Amino acid sequence: MKYRFADRMDGLFGSAVRNPLFEDPELISLAPGKPEGSVFPAEELIPIATDVLLKYREVALQYSDTEGLYELRDLIAKQRMAAAGVDCTAEDITLTSGSQEAIEMAAKIFINEGDTIIVEDPSYVGVYNAWKPYNPKYVGIPMDEDGMRMDALEEVLKTTPNAKMIYTIPDFQNPTGIVMSDDRRKKLAELAAEYQIPVIEDGPYSDLYYYGERHPSIKSFDKDGWVVNFGSFSKIFCPGFRLAWVCADPVILEKFQLCKQGSNLQCSTFDEMLALEYMKKHDINEHIEHVRAMYKERRDTMVECIEKYFPADVKHTSPMGGFFLWLELPEGIDTGEMLTEACLKYKVGYVQGEGFFCEPGRKNFIRLSYSYASPEKIEEGMKRLGNLLTKYYK
Amino acid sequence: MKYRFADRMDGLFGSAVRNPLFEDPELISLAPGKPEGSVFPAEELIPIATDVLLKYREVALQYSDTEGLYELRDLIAKQRMAAAGVDCTAEDITLTSGSQEAIEMAAKIFINEGDTIIVEDPSYVGVYNAWKPYNPKYVGIPMDEDGMRMDALEEVLKTTPNAKMIYTIPDFQNPTGIVMSDDRRKKLAELAAEYQIPVIEDGPYSDLYYYGERHPSIKSFDKDGWVVNFGSFSKIFCPGFRLAWVCADPVILEKFQLCKQGSNLQCSTFDEMLALEYMKKHDINEHIEHVRAMYKERRDTMVECIEKYFPADVKHTSPMGGFFLWLELPEGIDTGEMLTEACLKYKVGYVQGEGFFCEPGRKNFIRLSYSYASPEKIEEGMKRLGNLLTKYYK
Repeated sequence: MKYRFADRMDGLFGSAVRNPLFEDPELISLAPGKPEGSVFPAEELIPIATDVLLKYREVALQYSDTEGLYELRDLIAKQRMAAAGVDCTAEDITLTSGSQEAIEMAAKIFINEGDTIIVEDPSYVGVYNAWKPYNPKYVGIPMDEDGMRMDALEEVLKTTPNAKMIYTIPDFQNPTGIVMSDDRRKKLAELAAEYQIPVIEDGPYSDLYYYGERHPSIKSFDKDGWVVNFGSFSKIFCPGFRLAWVCADPVILEKFQLCKQGSNLQCSTFDEMLALEYMKKHDINEHIEHVRAMYKERRDTMVECIEKYFPADVKHTSPMGGFFLWLELPEGIDTGEMLTEACLKYKVGYVQGEGFFCEPGRKNFIRLSYSYASPEKIEEGMKRLGNLLTKYYK
Repeated sequence: MKYRFADRMDGLFGSAVRNPLFEDPELISLAPGKPEGSVFPAEELIPIATDVLLKYREVALQYSDTEGLYELRDLIAKQRMAAAGVDCTAEDITLTSGSQEAIEMAAKIFINEGDTIIVEDPSYVGVYNAWKPYNPKYVGIPMDEDGMRMDALEEVLKTTPNAKMIYTIPDFQNPTGIVMSDDRRKKLAELAAEYQIPVIEDGPYSDLYYYGERHPSIKSFDKDGWVVNFGSFSKIFCPGFRLAWVCADPVILEKFQLCKQGSNLQCSTFDEMLALEYMKKHDINEHIEHVRAMYKERRDTMVECIEKYFPADVKHTSPMGGFFLWLELPEGIDTGEMLTEACLKYKVGYVQGEGFFCEPGRKNFIRLSYSYASPEKIEEGMKRLGNLLTKYYK
């Protein structure tokens, strides 16, 4: 290697979710964690964009504050955080360029080299590359149908003094679709305070419940500022704007703002203003309800297809919201190896599960997404995947 | 402190450019490095925004690739990089959320703790906070009227084996306004190859020359891939979109892409598309010419005001482009202390120079900006500042 890069760049690789095999136009991909584009509120944004450019040109295209427009943060506090059961104000919110940015910054803020991050096992694959430059250790906590197991977590907290951060996706977890029970949310907030360790509560799917109601956030049980809540416009509005937020204790929030100032100063002023004006003129909750109805149909289709097309003993989750469903195949099946056959012969794509675990070696898992493919495509894709699995189960 | 933050957060403070004293409505601030808002092409963007939302809604509001839209990178290569004297293609470009992001990532990519970064002394204040978490050492190279002194640089390169990166703003440097001579650009590219050290060439003002022509970039003299060029839409188009780019050797470029993927996945797809469609429908060079004419008047006004209102022996630069001008006052004058009086009594704001140096202690410098205040405000602000300085020079 001609160039001398920093040590932290060693072993930093691209995302496993992006795969050139998926580019075959005949392939049905059940891989991407992308929202469906047809529900983006483009029509509503046309008059808003015109208006903003006419009336606020010198503000909308100019630099603005690192923390984000005050009015937008105010509406996030009053609408989104209130829905999460959190009573807060604009001052408790700072914007980030997607929750990905908040995730990356969390490790920058809390993690010295060799410190331990506690994650659900499996967890969002995108955290590992984001955090790789900070060289943390991981302890994975197993989940059951009620989410991260608190007994296992407490055991780890007792014996791991350099554990500096707990990362969780309590609602419709990526990749499993599991929801953490309300009791455990409360317990997690209590453990955080007891062991003085911050909990990063990542909630991109929290508003996307297809049965029942929104669960109270872990932050809503937080009395002493140990829970840091991340919310995002990506899945309920559109991801192209790269708008998300952090809600945290002021001392922690300031660190996010300082990191953001050093990293890229601010989010897009124009996109912030479009989101703000949209929320002023429209009821975003109504929009989200519409979005939920669409995803619910896709989720139901996929779950039904498991019954219809899959071998009877494929273990799977049946998520009540979000984008993802998780398959456990018999040990000995390598879903990474199987993926080439799936793409080339069966023309169906998925994400192999190994990369979601904090240690390599667990090869018999698959993440499926029902967010981006239409119900018809999901039906056909699941049929193809069922054919492939049937072959492997013989 | 209740929370245990990572060591890298120690001593990370907010930008010195933001000062609550500047918020007095009667104050004329010659501090901000902000572009003038009235020249942002808002009218032109109205039909483009409508068009993009109507025709490309599912693309424009969706996730896109980390490196940025191909067509936009293609136009950047063909127009902006060609103007910089660099022959390259879309594959040699990756987008970043402002050059600030590219700056931050450069240290992430190249700097281990304790490595040395070589900078012009003084240099852009925003690099120090961005790089603080990576804990580098600095060596500042003095400048003369032709920019960074190559003899001094070579001396440092010979004696500093852990120097891992040279950062320079060759065109209308922030804060001094100095331009590096073409001979030195060539020499710098040669030294980079000889000592195998990357040069980060930050060019946000490179197109903003008010006399003569654009200088060839350092990258245009680069034969072996040691020069990394940063360009930006912030000062020639608008900063609110947070769109900038890196042009580099593919091996280095991939590291920027990996960092960007971990940090925030991508820039705003919508803003990328607006910039792309603007460049397809309009001649951005014509727009830049218009922008240059406006700033030239402001620059000329400020330089003339130095003659008119300042004590005769105030040392100053007379930049041929960009946003900034640099004052050296007699030693013993503390421009930081003077700033309170300037704001409260004389109602004029500036940026104290100390923070631009890589070591504290040089208190007799001031950065003035002619980018944001109107010529009338500049005239009045310089008169006020002249009154203040006259008092100090007695």
